[in-house]
This record gives sequence, C-alpha cells and structure tokens, in this order.
Amino acid sequence: MPQVAVEPFVPVIEHADATGRFIFVCEHASNHIPSAYGTLGLDEDQRRAHIAWDPGALGVARRLADLLSGVLIHAPVSRLIYDCNRAPDMAGAMPTRSELHDIPGNTALSVQERLARTEAVYLPWVSTLHSLIARRIASGLNPVVVTIHSFTPVYFGKKRLVEFGIIHDEDRSLSVAVLTAAQKLTRLNAQLNAPYSAADDVTHTLRLHATPYGLPNVMLELRNDLIATPDAQETMAAQLAPVLNMGLAEIQKQAKAS
Amino acid sequence: MPQVAVEPFVPVIEHADATGRFIFVCEHASNHIPSAYGTLGLDEDQRRAHIAWDPGALGVARRLADLLSGVLIHAPVSRLIYDCNRAPDMAGAMPTRSELHDIPGNTALSVQERLARTEAVYLPWVSTLHSLIARRIASGLNPVVVTIHSFTPVYFGKKRLVEFGIIHDEDRSLSVAVLTAAQKLTRLNAQLNAPYSAADDVTHTLRLHATPYGLPNVMLELRNDLIATPDAQETMAAQLAPVLNMGLAEIQKQAKAS
Repeated sequence: MPQVAVEPFVPVIEHADATGRFIFVCEHASNHIPSAYGTLGLDEDQRRAHIAWDPGALGVARRLADLLSGVLIHAPVSRLIYDCNRAPDMAGAMPTRSELHDIPGNTALSVQERLARTEAVYLPWVSTLHSLIARRIASGLNPVVVTIHSFTPVYFGKKRLVEFGIIHDEDRSLSVAVLTAAQKLTRLNAQLNAPYSAADDVTHTLRLHATPYGLPNVMLELRNDLIATPDAQETMAAQLAPVLNMGLAEIQKQAKAS
Repeated sequence: MPQVAVEPFVPVIEHADATGRFIFVCEHASNHIPSAYGTLGLDEDQRRAHIAWDPGALGVARRLADLLSGVLIHAPVSRLIYDCNRAPDMAGAMPTRSELHDIPGNTALSVQERLARTEAVYLPWVSTLHSLIARRIASGLNPVVVTIHSFTPVYFGKKRLVEFGIIHDEDRSLSVAVLTAAQKLTRLNAQLNAPYSAADDVTHTLRLHATPYGLPNVMLELRNDLIATPDAQETMAAQLAPVLNMGLAEIQKQAKAS
C-alpha cells in the first residue's frame, strides 16, 4: 500500500451537553475504510464482518446514552485502519490478521505508514476523548467510563455461550456490581472477563482514560447476534440501562460505607 | 477574580527531532502568570518563589536533553494558574494555599473558572505531551519518560537533607536502578520516594502518560539550592546524565534476563 497523507479523522460526539455521569465510548463503531486506503485487499463481505468493526455496538451505545442522559463518543473509521483501543506498538493496532482473515493492506507497513495512521486516527481519538473526560471532571460531573463492544458468536469455529461479557481493568468494583445487577435483572448469560480479559490487552481505553483519574469504569461486550437489528439494539439497551444504574448505585453505596 | 477567556497555552517542545529514548518533562518550568490573571494577589517575592514554579528544573532538563539526545517538553505558565502534574479534581490543580502562602486569586474559583483554566492550560498540555509520546512509540523510539522537578531546601521551617529524590509510580524498576546508579556515581544524598511519593498525588504525569503504555519512567526531584545558577544546573546535569544512562542500561539488562 502506498503511503498516504490523510486529514485527521475526528471522533464523533453525541449529546455533548448531557449532564449524566455516563460516558459511553465506542472505539469500533464503524467499518468505514476511507478511500485513501483502498480496500485493504479485503472483499465486501470481509469489510462488513466483525473483523472490521463491532456490529450493533453503536446502536446499543446510542440508546444507552438516550436512556441514561449520557454522552457518547465513537470512532469514525474501521479498526482495521487503526484500532483505537490499542496502543501504537501493539500488534492489534494495525492488525495483519484477524481471526481467520489475513489483512493484505496491513502487511509490511513501514514505520512511516504506521506513524501516519497513528496521527490520522489514534491521536485525534485520544485527544478528543481525553478532553471530553477532563472537561467533565473539571465541571464536577463525576464521570463513569463505559466502553461498548460486540463479539462474534462463533470464533475459530467454536460457539460462544456467553452473551454479555463484563471486563475490568485495574479497578474491578463497577464490573462486579454490573455482573451482580445483570444476574438479578436479566436472563442474559453474563460473565466476568469473557470472552476475553485485560490480560489480552483489550482495556487500553480504560487504562489510558479512566484508571489514571480513578474514575469508575467497565468494558461491556455483547454477542453480536443479539444486537443485529435496530429493534434488537433497543431491547438490549432497555435491559442494560437499569443494570448500569443498579451497578453504579451499588458502588456509590460501597464508597459511602467505607 | 473575574472569569477570563484566554487562548490556550501551548507547551514548548525542544529538540523535537531528537532520536534518543529519553523524553524530559518539566511541568513546573515557568513562573509566568499571564496578565489576564493579574497577580493572583501575590507580591513579587512570592511570584518568584518555589510556590510558583520549580526553580532550576528547566535548566537541568535542557542540559540533560542536550547530553542524552532527548526531547524536552515544558509548560509555559505557573503551576499556580494550573498545575499540569495534577488532575482537574485534585486540590493542587489550582491551589488555594501552598506551604505558608495563601493564594488569594485561587480562592472561591467558580466551576466555570476551573473549567476555563483546565481548557487553557491542562488540555493543550496533555494533548501535546500525549501526541509526542504516542508518535515516538509509533516510530519505534522506545521512549522513557523522565519528569524533572525541584524542591525547596526548607519546608514549613524544617531543613531537608535529601538532595536528589527519585520517585516512582506503579513500575519502580527504573527508579531503583537510578538510585543505585546515583549511589555509585555521585556523592548526592539520593533517596527513593523523598521528599514525597506517589501517595501524595505527585505522579499524575507518569500515571497518565507512561504507565498505560508500559514505558519505563521516573520522577526526579532536585533540591533547588543545588541548581540555582546556570553553572550549577550544568554541573548537576553532568552528574545525572551518566546516572540515567546506567539506570536505563540496568533495566534493559534485567528485561533481557527475564
């Protein structure tokens, strides 16, 4: 792939003036591959598949932001160009392979090409998300960071039974409280640190933006067959909104008691 | 103090093209109080004293960057406007008192004033430093983050014997290696986590910019009576450069052995 000079891809913020505590973050909201990058050597089915984005995640995040008066931020390009939930030196930042698929456009990237993608996608993402969080901290809004993802029901040929994965970084308190609430309020197969965990380097956003400020945080993973349509996304968000409220209330209670 | 609308204060980067591993960071390089903020109710002696900045730190950092082919970034305004080594919700971000001195211009700041200072000073600082670091990670430069500070020899009337404080955040490996090197190579009274430690909330920069990326990092504190003149700063840097090199070599050796 030739080296391309592209303008920065600015993340999208919705409900910027929301005064609720929740900040919903969707790093894998879009499968858009800007024309400067061609097709990355992928066919149309591949570019529509879960390797390019987290199908359904943005729809759920939007409805959660509505229901909980939260703010929403999402990335405007495919994770195959740059995965905003990865540091620039991680293999997954510009992956050469994803599950069963080689990504031809990502093999043999030069240092200059890696740097150009970092500058075009990752830097504006981090800067915008950081400013959003720091402004809300300064404004006394006590933010809570929730990242919204989806995962494929079949991975390397194996079916996944988990429907709702709850993944924590250093501070597990909100994750545990959300799991307990999900078990009380829903019939979802909810599991902690499934289908993967922080040990798989999937909590970069939490580590960079929530942990250093001591903000409550959690990464939510939804099985994408459960959120394939706008109706299904609405139903899922309607189940998850009270779960998040109950989880947050629980850690506030714990904080007062300690 | 009236609410003031000010343009953002962009941090200064020196030796942007340096290819060495060290990134020297000076959050308290300047005692400049922009005219929009008046005098903060302080007299001239107070505005020149250690409460407004870290005297000598920038001079040492500049010479270290020269000696070690490092890049340098420093903040252009006084810590009394916004302390870039503090999160927006920390008391020290816009302190109302520093050691023996009240800061009249910082009492009773409204949420809007706190937000305005955060936007004018902290956001451009974080964004610029983050981009500097992420670009160097993407370029394969394996950065090492070293923050340079100075402290007053007499604090609340008590003399401090420590001359060279080495403070760590979560990863203590470089700090311990630097302490050992300082004891071998210099006669400085060098101590770990003195005159204060991460528990005093002084490692915000390391926590936000180095720890999430797994970068080696350390905070250096120099007693300011030892770096009061350009000559003294040069002498100190000449002592510290081999100490930093030896410390870095030691953790590289440990990494290879493990």
